[in-house]
Order: sequence, then C-alpha cells, then structure tokens
Amino acid sequence: MKVAIIGGTGKEARGMALRWAKAGHNVVLGSRDAARAAEKAQELSGLGCGTLAGTDNKSACQGADVVVLSIPYSAHPSTLAELKEALRNAIVIDITVPLKPPAVRTVNLPAGRSAALEAQALLGPETRVVAAMHHVSAVHLADLEHGIDCDVLACGDDAAALETAIKLISDLGVRAFDAGPLANAVALESLTPVLLHMNKRYKNPGVGVRFTGL
Amino acid sequence: MKVAIIGGTGKEARGMALRWAKAGHNVVLGSRDAARAAEKAQELSGLGCGTLAGTDNKSACQGADVVVLSIPYSAHPSTLAELKEALRNAIVIDITVPLKPPAVRTVNLPAGRSAALEAQALLGPETRVVAAMHHVSAVHLADLEHGIDCDVLACGDDAAALETAIKLISDLGVRAFDAGPLANAVALESLTPVLLHMNKRYKNPGVGVRFTGL
Repeated sequence: MKVAIIGGTGKEARGMALRWAKAGHNVVLGSRDAARAAEKAQELSGLGCGTLAGTDNKSACQGADVVVLSIPYSAHPSTLAELKEALRNAIVIDITVPLKPPAVRTVNLPAGRSAALEAQALLGPETRVVAAMHHVSAVHLADLEHGIDCDVLACGDDAAALETAIKLISDLGVRAFDAGPLANAVALESLTPVLLHMNKRYKNPGVGVRFTGL
Repeated sequence: MKVAIIGGTGKEARGMALRWAKAGHNVVLGSRDAARAAEKAQELSGLGCGTLAGTDNKSACQGADVVVLSIPYSAHPSTLAELKEALRNAIVIDITVPLKPPAVRTVNLPAGRSAALEAQALLGPETRVVAAMHHVSAVHLADLEHGIDCDVLACGDDAAALETAIKLISDLGVRAFDAGPLANAVALESLTPVLLHMNKRYKNPGVGVRFTGL
C-alpha cells in the first residue's frame, strides 16, 4: 500500500514510517520543505527497514492509498486548505490532537468539536477521514526493539476506510480497534491531554491505554 | 466515611454501595422515593457486606463526607437544582455520562461541554465536584466475587477533594488515577460511548480500560 505521511519529518512520523516500511508498504514522507523530506527519507532508508521517499506535501499525496496527517494543530487548517484537491478520494488518517499550548494537559475543544471533524468538514464528503493514533508515545513508536504497550482506537464514518485504516495501523505492531463514528473523535483526541497529565503526575513519560474484555 | 449515593436504587449504585459498605464506610442510599431507598438498603444489608441506610435524596446528603451522583443525564439538572443547598460544602463525585438516547454509542457534548462541568457551574464554588467512575461496568461492579479489569480516572479542580475521591474509589477494589482538572471530564465522559460502541462491535458487554506504564 502507498502511504504518505504529511509532516513526515516530525517525531511522530518517524516510528510510523519505519514500521510501515518494514512491513512492506511504500512510504512517502511529505513536508513543506521537499529537500528536508528527501533528506529524512534518505536517513530512514539507511536504517534497514526499506527504502522510503521524501517530497513536498502535495506530491506525496499523489497516488497514495492512505494519507496520514501528522502535523501540529496550529498547522491543521492551512495544511488541509492547501491539500484539499490532492486529498480528494483519499483515505486520510488524522492523528491531530487539538492541544492549546501551554495548557497541553487540559482538554481543549476546538470550534468544530474535534480536529478530525474539522478536517472532514473542510475536505468534504469525497475525502474519507479516519481519526486514530492519538495515544501511542512517539518515543515508543520509534523504538523498533520494543513492543508497544498501548492500543489504538480509530473512528470514522466510512466503514471501508475505517477497516483499511485499522488494518494498516495493525501493521505498526499494535492492536487497533473500531471506536465508532467520526463524532467519537472527540473522545479519542481529548484523552491525550489526560495521558499527558498522567505522564507528569505519575512521573512516567509514556503512559498508555489498553482495552480489556476483548 | 459517610457516603451518600443519590440515585441509590439504580444498578450503577448497587456495586458501589455493597463494596463501600464492605470496606467499612457508612453508606446511605438516596432516592426521590424514600420508601424505595429504605427497601433497597434493607435488601443490600441482607447480603453480608454491612448495614446500609436508605432515605430521600436531601436527607441522604445531610452530614455526608462525599455525595455520589448516580443518576441519568436527563435527571441531572433537576436533581442538582433540588440538592444545591444540601450539597454546599460537600465533595460531589459525579459519575454522569451525558448520553443522548438512542444514540448512546456516539459522543454527545452537552451545552456546558461535560455533565461534571455543568454540575460545578450549577452548584457553585462552595461545592467541590470530582468527575469519575464513567468506565467500570455496573455488572462487574456488582459482582463481588470477581476482580474488576478496569481502571478509574478521576478529575477535579480541588486537590484535596480529588485526593479524597481517589482514595474512596480505591476502596471499591480498583486502581484510581488523577486525570487532571475538571475540564478533563470531557475526555472521561466521552470515552463511555466509545466503550459502549466497542461492547457491541466486538460482542463483549464489558469492555474496560487500563492504563499502562504506571
């Protein structure tokens, strides 16, 4: 599967890119700066997981089966506006958490209730948005030597897109679950500030979440 | 500790009442119907966990260290208005999830963002509201023979009230964690429709949540 990661030079992208490349996917890193994306792709390609490509955001989206949005919330509206045409008919996995620095350990509800709902509204019905990957530590994800003690929740309104996303996320080496309609992105996104609070409160940088009884 | 449970004849209350009585707390069940509360208290007192009392909601609050609100969201505003004076200076543990039947598996954000934030706004600053207990299955809670494979998150703006609530909830036989300020009740309450979705999607009535790395 061809997977584009927008914000592909960031620390959240690193683990996803390496794990998907290792699982045999065709991974393209997108960045506003094509040269930086190409440089990062070359660096990651040297780690023995497979060959990755890097280019500008719009080019990265071309022909991608799935596009992962791995960008800070502050860049969310402008990136979506820029990529709207390029994302038409794509499956978009939006991992954005609408944090409001410096209060990143307190839930912030954006005007559209959730970043993913805002993305769906901005992109229109021809793009199928799935919200997922809000809770896995970027550090754990990038550490290929260790298992990830955290489940992933994914939600979306298009059943086929949600199934594709869940299967792709499972290839990262995590359990991924169907968390319902895209309206449930509110729950997924708002749990992240709680985990960030618990990281600080319990002096552990990588608090994760597991679901039981499954 | 004297613990009053408003909505004390309901199925969510049963397990809490029995487990707290067993742990040595003085448990009073409150109901709009004092006779029904007394009857339920007598029934539960016969189960060997200790002696419970039952009375009307207002009387149940008198002298209680902690008052647990275990009522459906539809009864939330009227119950809070009725009990506002009785709850002054109390610690209130609000377990309400703002579900919107029949769509109970989809997140519903109420006008005040969360039931607990609405409670705090209605009750005023003299009452300290803690939000907690949104994810434990009532069936598992009422089954005293089995361990509960679910953690509890609790949040609130008053540190002492939050600590008291966490300690009391731990007496139910669960791990309870500090989830941050009351604004984070949005995350806690909105995770419940997700769990209800997963119960149905994965054909398991008791999906729970555990936190890792702690």
